[in-house]
Amino acid sequence: MRKFLIPLAALLAATPALPQASANIAAGRAQPSPLAPSEIVAAAPKADWTGIEASDLLVLDLATDSKGKPRRVVIQLMPAPFSQGWVSNIRKLAAAKFWDGTSINRVQDNYVVQWGDANAEDKTKARKLPGDLAVVPQANYSSRLGKQEVVYSLQSAHPLGQDFITDGAGSKTRWYPIRPSRDAYAEGTAILAGWPIAVAPRAAATDKDLELSGWPVHCYGMVGVGRDMPPNTGTGAELYAVIGHAPRHLDRNIALVGRVIEGIEHLSSLPRGTGALGFYETPEERTAIVSIRIGSEVSGLPAYEYLSTESESFARYADARANRRDAFFIRPAGGADICNIPVPVRRAK
Amino acid sequence: MRKFLIPLAALLAATPALPQASANIAAGRAQPSPLAPSEIVAAAPKADWTGIEASDLLVLDLATDSKGKPRRVVIQLMPAPFSQGWVSNIRKLAAAKFWDGTSINRVQDNYVVQWGDANAEDKTKARKLPGDLAVVPQANYSSRLGKQEVVYSLQSAHPLGQDFITDGAGSKTRWYPIRPSRDAYAEGTAILAGWPIAVAPRAAATDKDLELSGWPVHCYGMVGVGRDMPPNTGTGAELYAVIGHAPRHLDRNIALVGRVIEGIEHLSSLPRGTGALGFYETPEERTAIVSIRIGSEVSGLPAYEYLSTESESFARYADARANRRDAFFIRPAGGADICNIPVPVRRAK
Repeated sequence: MRKFLIPLAALLAATPALPQASANIAAGRAQPSPLAPSEIVAAAPKADWTGIEASDLLVLDLATDSKGKPRRVVIQLMPAPFSQGWVSNIRKLAAAKFWDGTSINRVQDNYVVQWGDANAEDKTKARKLPGDLAVVPQANYSSRLGKQEVVYSLQSAHPLGQDFITDGAGSKTRWYPIRPSRDAYAEGTAILAGWPIAVAPRAAATDKDLELSGWPVHCYGMVGVGRDMPPNTGTGAELYAVIGHAPRHLDRNIALVGRVIEGIEHLSSLPRGTGALGFYETPEERTAIVSIRIGSEVSGLPAYEYLSTESESFARYADARANRRDAFFIRPAGGADICNIPVPVRRAK
Repeated sequence: MRKFLIPLAALLAATPALPQASANIAAGRAQPSPLAPSEIVAAAPKADWTGIEASDLLVLDLATDSKGKPRRVVIQLMPAPFSQGWVSNIRKLAAAKFWDGTSINRVQDNYVVQWGDANAEDKTKARKLPGDLAVVPQANYSSRLGKQEVVYSLQSAHPLGQDFITDGAGSKTRWYPIRPSRDAYAEGTAILAGWPIAVAPRAAATDKDLELSGWPVHCYGMVGVGRDMPPNTGTGAELYAVIGHAPRHLDRNIALVGRVIEGIEHLSSLPRGTGALGFYETPEERTAIVSIRIGSEVSGLPAYEYLSTESESFARYADARANRRDAFFIRPAGGADICNIPVPVRRAK
């Protein structure tokens, strides 16, 4: 592996040539088929998995379904430096049992499922919010990421593993930039400590003393904070999960606070609302929320872990997502958008 | 409006600078808010809408839901030059009533809903296919688009409306390239006659005598042809619809034959299958298909129309999808990926 220090600005501007990815078409199948992404994940050693603290989970229990089956949705809250004002509010709301007895009020196809107090707009009926919620400024939709050192390494077998960024202080946090400059929404995208992040150089940045601005990306399953018209930024009492094609136009316009790591099917398969924006038109259509709790308050909750995005297994997985070479495929794409490389999460083994 | 002839290769390679799109943050709200995309569509004159022939529709009627409500899914079949071998097969299958009594057999979250003969793999139980179905070659996953003349026009109010391509023969077909070179999967993307298409110069192309290869893109709601291992390309008897983030790695690996234009919620809200790949584990979980017919065979079918992608209204709509300036937004994205600019379709008024 060769490494080069290169300016981030150059990295962001680079448009890698698309590989001629059709070699497999003519190739015979004498050799065993390369692994599919799911097979790479299944084969990853235990050391490549990172545990998720129960205190960083939000557990949403819906009313049982029509057959009496439980419906639990497990959400991982976003780590620092992103959206921490809202995350802190959400911890307070959960501690206050604010959501118990609220409901899912909106299901818009190819967009979002939204939940909270259905009477929030009616002052005579609205639930009382905890008194100590922070008012978070719009500026916090993105975060300053500090001085960065850019390391560019070549490893021919893993085109998507070529680039990573470590911070200048020697932190081992590894970035995973995805096809720099081929994203329609941001100068760069990366997977940072397990999360999809978009990045841009800060206005004052120079090659020598580079600073980055970063913000979380609205991929499928991400959880955000409903809000009123700006400058309102929402408290966290009204939440939504993405159930369609990544609505990236919401990036930096709404706070993202986490992602669903288990049970999203209990949200994505709900009946769509027939009112404007997918709101249900009658209270009977809503799905009741039994409770929302921080994971450490939930007895018997399984432990969860994610495939470390600093691991070699993740590099292979990401490369395979961008270049499917398993037997079903005839033409690897030569790239992937950041939302098509979801970070694998599982119950800990 | 100024126009320039530029080589397509240069257009594809160009990486436009991201606009500084935060002007709205500081701006006061004294002026009326710019229109949201949905408002632009609602205000589009009748002349900007193009009718869809009933003979180009495929009407999928599912069994009624648990409350006895009908569930109809309307699919628009893909026009020439794309995937016509499979589309022709699908017309034959519908005419033969092949799908009547078959079922939806697979619902994989954030991926696809798939339907067809659940016993297709069991020779003793499989339904008989019509005898005259074509075997379509893999080469037909993409299409030669002929000589192209590239016209670049500047219109400052509509950054996404800057680029379009007309063919050299004077056809009025208008292309709508989306942020050239900022797509992770293809050299270029465009909306051609209402359809999301990825493009690449053909190997032999030169600036002077340019030819393009194009292929349809796996956006939300697109309908494709299930198949066995390559070189099998599928007949069209097994179909799927995308119900998640665009699985672009399937582009040019599977044939796309249409898109859902109404009723996708009857597919996307189905219970997810718990078997491998989201297949249902028991026959009871499947949703029965009553019939699938070409639209011209269905009495009482409404007429449908789409917002012409050659119209000024579409240019404004696409620009607004990429740059939300309506009151809710504080930061226009400055771009959009092709699957985030879905072509508006409605019942004809």
